[in-house]
Amino acid sequence: MELKTPKGTTDVVGRVAHRKAEILATIRRVFEDVGGVELDTPVFERRDALAGKYGEEGARLIYDLADQGGELCSLRYDLTVPFARWLAMNPTVRQIQRFQIGKVYRRDQPALARGRLREFWQCDFDIAGRAHDRMMSDAKILGILVRVLSRLGLAGLADNRNSVIVIKLNHRRILDGIFAVAGVPEPLLRPISAAVDKLDKLPWADVRREMLGKGLSADVADRLGHYVQQAGTLQEMLPILQGSSSSSGADDDDSAVLASNNDIQAGVEDMLLLQEYLEAWDIDASAFTLDLSLARGLDYYTGLICEAVMRDDVRDSKKRNLFDSKISISPPLQIGSIAGGGRYDGLVGMYGKEAIPCVGLSIGVDRVFALLQARQSLMVNAIAKPLAPVLDVYVMSADKRDGLLRERARLTARLWDADIRAHYTLKAKPRLDGEMTASKDVPIVVVLHGSELSEGKVQVKQAITGRHGGSFSGVFTTKIVSLDKVVEEIKTMLANSL
Amino acid sequence: MELKTPKGTTDVVGRVAHRKAEILATIRRVFEDVGGVELDTPVFERRDALAGKYGEEGARLIYDLADQGGELCSLRYDLTVPFARWLAMNPTVRQIQRFQIGKVYRRDQPALARGRLREFWQCDFDIAGRAHDRMMSDAKILGILVRVLSRLGLAGLADNRNSVIVIKLNHRRILDGIFAVAGVPEPLLRPISAAVDKLDKLPWADVRREMLGKGLSADVADRLGHYVQQAGTLQEMLPILQGSSSSSGADDDDSAVLASNNDIQAGVEDMLLLQEYLEAWDIDASAFTLDLSLARGLDYYTGLICEAVMRDDVRDSKKRNLFDSKISISPPLQIGSIAGGGRYDGLVGMYGKEAIPCVGLSIGVDRVFALLQARQSLMVNAIAKPLAPVLDVYVMSADKRDGLLRERARLTARLWDADIRAHYTLKAKPRLDGEMTASKDVPIVVVLHGSELSEGKVQVKQAITGRHGGSFSGVFTTKIVSLDKVVEEIKTMLANSL
Repeated sequence: MELKTPKGTTDVVGRVAHRKAEILATIRRVFEDVGGVELDTPVFERRDALAGKYGEEGARLIYDLADQGGELCSLRYDLTVPFARWLAMNPTVRQIQRFQIGKVYRRDQPALARGRLREFWQCDFDIAGRAHDRMMSDAKILGILVRVLSRLGLAGLADNRNSVIVIKLNHRRILDGIFAVAGVPEPLLRPISAAVDKLDKLPWADVRREMLGKGLSADVADRLGHYVQQAGTLQEMLPILQGSSSSSGADDDDSAVLASNNDIQAGVEDMLLLQEYLEAWDIDASAFTLDLSLARGLDYYTGLICEAVMRDDVRDSKKRNLFDSKISISPPLQIGSIAGGGRYDGLVGMYGKEAIPCVGLSIGVDRVFALLQARQSLMVNAIAKPLAPVLDVYVMSADKRDGLLRERARLTARLWDADIRAHYTLKAKPRLDGEMTASKDVPIVVVLHGSELSEGKVQVKQAITGRHGGSFSGVFTTKIVSLDKVVEEIKTMLANSL
Repeated sequence: MELKTPKGTTDVVGRVAHRKAEILATIRRVFEDVGGVELDTPVFERRDALAGKYGEEGARLIYDLADQGGELCSLRYDLTVPFARWLAMNPTVRQIQRFQIGKVYRRDQPALARGRLREFWQCDFDIAGRAHDRMMSDAKILGILVRVLSRLGLAGLADNRNSVIVIKLNHRRILDGIFAVAGVPEPLLRPISAAVDKLDKLPWADVRREMLGKGLSADVADRLGHYVQQAGTLQEMLPILQGSSSSSGADDDDSAVLASNNDIQAGVEDMLLLQEYLEAWDIDASAFTLDLSLARGLDYYTGLICEAVMRDDVRDSKKRNLFDSKISISPPLQIGSIAGGGRYDGLVGMYGKEAIPCVGLSIGVDRVFALLQARQSLMVNAIAKPLAPVLDVYVMSADKRDGLLRERARLTARLWDADIRAHYTLKAKPRLDGEMTASKDVPIVVVLHGSELSEGKVQVKQAITGRHGGSFSGVFTTKIVSLDKVVEEIKTMLANSL
């Protein structure tokens, strides 16, 4: 028998698990702050509830449960379709801001270095309903994404200059219009769209070859390539799509063709409104790029499409000083998108019930973690001592005659009562050298001694730590504190050392 | 197509999901306080890693994944076996206090009213290793269980008189000894042990009938029944098992038989030590009952066995005033155990690696929730407005000419920056009557008006709430606050209203 986790899955433990839990808690808090209502759906769904929602490619990646009698079920592939199923099941709910945090499952070829696993966390926020003004919920979704990235230290909220992330935008109808203008025949729309989506990973020559292989003519491929390789700020791109080509290298013919396409102009109207709301809400527009190649694999997007990726100059190894890390971990070069989403007005209606327009986003926490891991010196500890518990206080006896078990236990329990992470050794008489080793990386050590205890006093030693709290220099300050004040004293020490 | 969740699973949403997340966070915090190291394992395991760990009964309940090529996998049945698999896989880890919080899966007959679902949360804390003095980690595990129950308001830590929970204890070797003393033949040990385990749900007559049906002779069954129906505090029970029968109704023959059994006496030694540590750590002994029928289904326990259940007098409907609830929800009468655990020194060794002694507990959060639901008046809101977001502040415009979208958005964003849960309507010009309805249950409402804003001021209205914060009387106090002070002012209001 082989002792391992199933292919494409990992155990997460210790400091790494702690950091991931912190990231999940941060995202949860933002989702609650902005008025989200939590939904938790089962990890598996009836198979017919997932059928036909993810395209051919997606369907191939779904994990099925074995037929052991009863319903046929599959593991969830994302959190969006379960939300749509829930909306369809609950016809009295016509409007909601729901969030869900959970793992999803895809039988994909795993690539650990790129953060592609078969089991991974998603944090979703979606706004459903017709009650909002057009594009206002789309703008709120983008604002929530920027807010989450900002809380995680990956982007600025009002000032995005030091961001390592760029949020790519596109619009289904602009894409549709470009495909029409380029002359892509109807039956090739899906396969060619999938090829365009690969432009962030492959050079144009490779994508072009794939298109020709799928039966697209060379001149249509080149016309399409001319459009979809354009990207820039909303301010740069929207005028081009409206037909005022002056600021770009596009020729006038081009502009007239774009301007005369109804789909493109409807998409541009939406994006102008979006731009207006983002500005009104002080969200720095430099966080966003309108990228005409962005399609995303999923079939269900009908309007805005968005995706957060590492900035090219950060991905480029020469410019990696944007990671102000003092340590020698390199950021992963090809980490894929860390968040994505868009508008899907048709999905709920696929269950045969009233269609409810929705817009939402999904954050891939494992990839966020991989990015943060590269930046945070906190992770030194995670690498050096991955299994050490995160402790505030270690309580030990320095009394040679007495292990002082009862006293260690009682003091520790008082610290636990105050939600201070504390530990003592589960031995009646622990050896002092073992205690010194075990307490080495804990910021505060309380030392008990019979003679001091009889006067109601204990020693509280605080480590002099490095700038990030992680590097421990082995030097302590020592205070004699009265036993009834010690919890309060330690609380103050911890508050001051944050 | 039928729109439903798979059998035995549910969607959890809104106020209920929020409360469950709070319970999980409370348990996580206690687990971190006491020095736990988090482990997160995949939701499915290789099928051979689970095989032979749960007995025949358990094996029948495991969900298998379909064979889609590659490894054969199954959904995890508990968090204990994945922990043992992880320990066996990581031979450098010889000692750890690990916790895990996650869902587990059992294809059992669902019984929603009893809190039995096919997908449910478990929160596990286990201590592995030989480094601790005997029974000291067992006592710490019980201490952690009492601490969690106390944080959740279900038990007292040092004073347990108002607890609704009792923690039943037993010891594998005491059980083995009793089976030997009663004369249960070796091949019947497992089936008869499973029958004994049902004594908390069935009367003795039914259990006896099951035993006879399994081939036990009537006199052995009666002797066994005499022993396993005894329960009491450690202080009452341990002397009986040691052979000093004076305090009980047992006759002298009985005492001598028990006292001469090596297994029973080894178990009693352990329990005496446990009693000593619990006392040293100020944990009220009245929280515990030594119940000689407690076996628990799982095969892998080798020492201490424990299980937290509702107190009989609380389960008894006539005495349900222990639930000091003002509302008319009845506590579920038959909710099963809400936590269980014990010592399993042989499980890790089953993977062909060095055996590592372990002791741990598992808390069933869905059942904890069902209990708390019956007690907490907080849940009035959950029932009346299950899908309302949990909000601190609603920001609206009362200006008839201007929706003040930009101002509402900016002020709300400042509240979000301070982690205050706030909301405004996603419309440029919302109708005032709609705003009044939407803000009705939010404790603080900020009202913007053009003329006040031009003086840098806003109105902050705070609802006069009922005793539990939930019942809103419709009466407000109103303050005029300067715009640059409003976040600080609201923070203070929220802090004071906790």
